[in-house]
Amino acid sequence: MHVNGHALLTDLYELTMMQGYYYHLKNMHAVFDMFFRHAPFNGGYAVFAGLAPLVDELCSLRFTRDDIEYLKSQKIFTDDFLGYLQTFRFTGDVYAAPEGAVVFPNEPLVRVEGNIIECQLIESLLLNIVNFQTLIATKASRIFNASRQGSILEFGLRRAQGVDGAISATRAAYIGGASATSNVLAGKMFGIPVAGTMAHSWVMAFPDERQAFMEFAKLYPDRCILLVDTFDTIKSGIPNAITVFREMREKGLSTIGIRLDSGDLEYLSKLARREFDRAGFTDAKIYASNELDENIIHQLVSRNAPIDSWGAGTSLVTAQGDSSLSGVYKIVAKKLNGAYLPTMKISNTMEKITNPCRKNVARIYDTRGIMLADLIVADDAAAPDAALRELDAGKPVRLNHPSNENVKTVVSGYGRYETLLTKVIEHGEPCADFPPLAQVRAAAIRNLASLDDTHRRFINPHIYKVSLSNGMKDLKFGLMKRARADTNNSL
Amino acid sequence: MHVNGHALLTDLYELTMMQGYYYHLKNMHAVFDMFFRHAPFNGGYAVFAGLAPLVDELCSLRFTRDDIEYLKSQKIFTDDFLGYLQTFRFTGDVYAAPEGAVVFPNEPLVRVEGNIIECQLIESLLLNIVNFQTLIATKASRIFNASRQGSILEFGLRRAQGVDGAISATRAAYIGGASATSNVLAGKMFGIPVAGTMAHSWVMAFPDERQAFMEFAKLYPDRCILLVDTFDTIKSGIPNAITVFREMREKGLSTIGIRLDSGDLEYLSKLARREFDRAGFTDAKIYASNELDENIIHQLVSRNAPIDSWGAGTSLVTAQGDSSLSGVYKIVAKKLNGAYLPTMKISNTMEKITNPCRKNVARIYDTRGIMLADLIVADDAAAPDAALRELDAGKPVRLNHPSNENVKTVVSGYGRYETLLTKVIEHGEPCADFPPLAQVRAAAIRNLASLDDTHRRFINPHIYKVSLSNGMKDLKFGLMKRARADTNNSL
Repeated sequence: MHVNGHALLTDLYELTMMQGYYYHLKNMHAVFDMFFRHAPFNGGYAVFAGLAPLVDELCSLRFTRDDIEYLKSQKIFTDDFLGYLQTFRFTGDVYAAPEGAVVFPNEPLVRVEGNIIECQLIESLLLNIVNFQTLIATKASRIFNASRQGSILEFGLRRAQGVDGAISATRAAYIGGASATSNVLAGKMFGIPVAGTMAHSWVMAFPDERQAFMEFAKLYPDRCILLVDTFDTIKSGIPNAITVFREMREKGLSTIGIRLDSGDLEYLSKLARREFDRAGFTDAKIYASNELDENIIHQLVSRNAPIDSWGAGTSLVTAQGDSSLSGVYKIVAKKLNGAYLPTMKISNTMEKITNPCRKNVARIYDTRGIMLADLIVADDAAAPDAALRELDAGKPVRLNHPSNENVKTVVSGYGRYETLLTKVIEHGEPCADFPPLAQVRAAAIRNLASLDDTHRRFINPHIYKVSLSNGMKDLKFGLMKRARADTNNSL
Repeated sequence: MHVNGHALLTDLYELTMMQGYYYHLKNMHAVFDMFFRHAPFNGGYAVFAGLAPLVDELCSLRFTRDDIEYLKSQKIFTDDFLGYLQTFRFTGDVYAAPEGAVVFPNEPLVRVEGNIIECQLIESLLLNIVNFQTLIATKASRIFNASRQGSILEFGLRRAQGVDGAISATRAAYIGGASATSNVLAGKMFGIPVAGTMAHSWVMAFPDERQAFMEFAKLYPDRCILLVDTFDTIKSGIPNAITVFREMREKGLSTIGIRLDSGDLEYLSKLARREFDRAGFTDAKIYASNELDENIIHQLVSRNAPIDSWGAGTSLVTAQGDSSLSGVYKIVAKKLNGAYLPTMKISNTMEKITNPCRKNVARIYDTRGIMLADLIVADDAAAPDAALRELDAGKPVRLNHPSNENVKTVVSGYGRYETLLTKVIEHGEPCADFPPLAQVRAAAIRNLASLDDTHRRFINPHIYKVSLSNGMKDLKFGLMKRARADTNNSL
């Protein structure tokens, strides 16, 4: 289920373009930005995920002999170019936001620099990994918020989009806030806690429900969560669960509870809670599942349904509501000899125009540590963006609207700032630490806590500012004006 | 990207239930049905896919030593049971519909028989593979129909749900009607034609658009499809394309055309067609892409937009509109000693009640070869379903509504019939031929042609009848009545 550096996992046009660069622009270097245009689920933010697997893949990309044979059979590629692919390595540099970072539309999350041939190849793979894992971490974060940071069990394997749609989703869901997964292989691969209860088939395999529950209680006295809806939750499931709890409690039954998987979860959870409390089982847990998403959970929580743990499957791992993140990978600078030239895609749609040049993001916090705004700045050691000097000096800084030249504001009296992108690959080798996933998850939860709560609303959230520095603004709008003067020039 | 028989790719509860069966029901055999409850996309049918990869996986399922160590570390499983897993093989039988078959809600697509321990393990893996591939083959089929069986290029790698979300989707999309893919690795793995044009970065890497087009035409004279929207489709892209076609035509340029990736596709395609025809390039092809799905394509086709080839990405590979197929895997019969006992899940929701017992589907065609109805029949060599005898004799056959006991009809004067499920795994070994994917695709297209067109409408389609034989009906409603008399009895 891992690509294991399979360089052929790319779109054919990347390879045909590579061959073109190989003959015409062999020494061109380029800078590409990966960013997305809209926050998924009409939300106010995304949680960046997928970085460690991406770095893994990029640093081990190879074409096998078999791949070269296959490409040869397509009769598109020259022997010379195929010879180049045979020894291909990704030798560029990559900068990225840390995994678990809260991120926003139209700011770079990953920046790739190197020979244009190499940068072009990795487009599809990079987007595949980052788009999906960021999407799922964001969905998980929303579900986690809806539960008031409660216990979320990810149960999505059977409905996920393919094997890796399950495994990568499990990883990303954990980063975004899930507590555990049912997916044993993903649990093993990433060190994620595994969890689960029972299926209807367990109950149906025994002569009756009570016996099925009893045998389960004997086998798993410390994880005795019984599925109560095989026949009739109220008339059969809950009474049988109580009978078994009574009979087995003194024989060592410790963790007890039920899972509700159908019916009205508010009604049934309140009824079950009353019955358990009346029977003296105040410690019995109530798990709920059945097509749960952030909206259903939010509603149940706000109506005080006494649910202790939420099983989320399909909606979480397939990101229901937004099946993909709109992440793209665009060239923003190029050089043949000498310095980088900024480049941008012009479009009739203002918001589809890219932000040119090699850049970073300065994230500005208020004095309480709450995020105020993100400022896109030029990243050029030879000519540092003036906004960074102002930030270092704590001076007022201008924030310019990214697509409307006349909209601007000034931020002052802020606290610290940090730059979002740091180098994670240098000359094709990993050059950063990738912490264990539990630490990434903890960082993501901390990150989210530094985002004002109004940006986390599910519906119509407060829009977080992603602005341009003065230098970036002048560059962008200057290039646009030049482009409009001569539509036939690339920039 | 392949699981390669990884038995740990399962939900934890399958393993805890397996341990329970191991101690309590070690010799129980069971029959499980995989089926789905609703056709995806509010459509009238689905295209069954994923069988060959499923058979591959099931026949190579193993727990590695490392897996056993991991499970041991969870402190849930006994050494005895872990020893059993160490030598685990799937040794059961599997029956399935052929890949590419048109299938409908509530009829079995896959039937698994064997020791209940083995049947339980494979639930999550089976559902993962079949749910996703069937979903995508169905989406592709809809898009293919919308284009009036035109040329569909699957471009989804970068927006797919993970690596396998791309690779499996490419496979399934081809079965459902896509002509080619951009995904090179999937093309190599499954022998699917690969295709592609160019990206904006190609155009932006050169000093101007005309030069970028010219170099491409020289490199790829037999696949010269130019992306015309980097700066301005009308003022720059199309005129530059025509200039290059003019200049290069006599120098061997053969396949020419453009790709439109933004703007109004009807307006631009009609404009481009006029310009090309006026310039004498009546053979120039027009490709279109940009968030296309069956509804957009249907509308453009019905308005006679002169588009020759459709690039479908996100919507196709993520099955926009329905992120998962609602496929489930339910126990329908069990035996400890002697004969199978039918079993069913009772629910307060009539349509969630499963159809009990070991069964097959008789697909009845009219005399023109158009599908009339599917009839669910008992599959029991010792006591064949009477409906099958009637079908063999060409006699009138009763079709009973699956959830309303009093609704029935009779079919007579029909043509041939066939049974949908055939054996594909016997005692854990593949026992059927799995044809090359191009043959599966051709069969799927033929199958779909035998479905009355009214069932293929995108919106509010004519519902195809999936009925119960008299024997099946009596069994199902009889069991339900007994169950209601005693809700605490498993069936």
